[in-house]
Amino acid sequence: MFQNIVSLSHHIIKEKVHKGDHVLDATVGKGNDTLLLSQLVEDEGSVYGFDLQAEAIGITQKRLNTESNYKNTKLFQADHSQLDKYLPADLELQFAIFNLGYLPSGDKEIITKAETTTMAIEAILPRLKKDGVLAIASYIGHPGGMEEFLKVQLLVESLDQKRYNVGMFQFLNQKNNPPRLFIIERR
Amino acid sequence: MFQNIVSLSHHIIKEKVHKGDHVLDATVGKGNDTLLLSQLVEDEGSVYGFDLQAEAIGITQKRLNTESNYKNTKLFQADHSQLDKYLPADLELQFAIFNLGYLPSGDKEIITKAETTTMAIEAILPRLKKDGVLAIASYIGHPGGMEEFLKVQLLVESLDQKRYNVGMFQFLNQKNNPPRLFIIERR
Repeated sequence: MFQNIVSLSHHIIKEKVHKGDHVLDATVGKGNDTLLLSQLVEDEGSVYGFDLQAEAIGITQKRLNTESNYKNTKLFQADHSQLDKYLPADLELQFAIFNLGYLPSGDKEIITKAETTTMAIEAILPRLKKDGVLAIASYIGHPGGMEEFLKVQLLVESLDQKRYNVGMFQFLNQKNNPPRLFIIERR
Repeated sequence: MFQNIVSLSHHIIKEKVHKGDHVLDATVGKGNDTLLLSQLVEDEGSVYGFDLQAEAIGITQKRLNTESNYKNTKLFQADHSQLDKYLPADLELQFAIFNLGYLPSGDKEIITKAETTTMAIEAILPRLKKDGVLAIASYIGHPGGMEEFLKVQLLVESLDQKRYNVGMFQFLNQKNNPPRLFIIERR
């Protein structure tokens, strides 16, 4: 459960996401989270996925076609800071997730950026349902990673305690700058 | 789930502790964790509880007598740094927990201390079963609290990554020095 950021975030996903929920993967990447979300919300729910890179959208669409049992996912090759243009205006989210940084085994020059990341977070927060969670895995080892981490931290630590439970999980005994996980739970 | 340290630690307890497990409450206090552990391990398991204060042992024994369905708990009015004197030599633990600081609504002069806390942690770690967890809620708002937190952090961050997953959860948007939760999972 606490082996790495993926095992922890997938534990939280399984705890929070159920059949019929509406959820968002703000950084589709290779589709690991998208696929898990698709399986959990089933036909009654919906998954929205964003990624700037055609490669990520292509890989993930292929995985959904072959590995998911449900046709419940809409992928957009678009900037997640623009998500309000793509999501139904009244869509409330039970769960949303970011994996910041670059596409694993992709072009490491193409990274998420503090400015658009914080815009996307601010667009997601008002859509969270009660007890819904926004999880943000923040990688700090690459150039620009620490800057993005600090800007996200500044944003989320200012959220009203009466409306959101905001916490962070970090590994203490791992080398090579392990990622940190922000968890924002709507009260 | 992420409302406060108690809701988070009880989530982890329910995830990790099942019927037949052997578990330890290193700081019994008013018995909130002890009672939950007693209910979860049932007749096939066992709970060991330590507290220096007679008041804590008395309150908790009374609660166990009236609120637990099982006679599976042994309470010791003793220093948890001496736990090896009380536990069976071959006892392996699925779960152990500390709530550091003082007894709620008790004498705030009587607090857990860095030296005996770290001795107790070192006695528990070799007893953890694979996938078993040691959780340590560390309160930093009272005199001596920050010193104890830093000593525990120094100890747990030095643990071998091959043997233990070590992490920490902290709240980011709560006032008044919210506690932090260390989580040590045996690999």
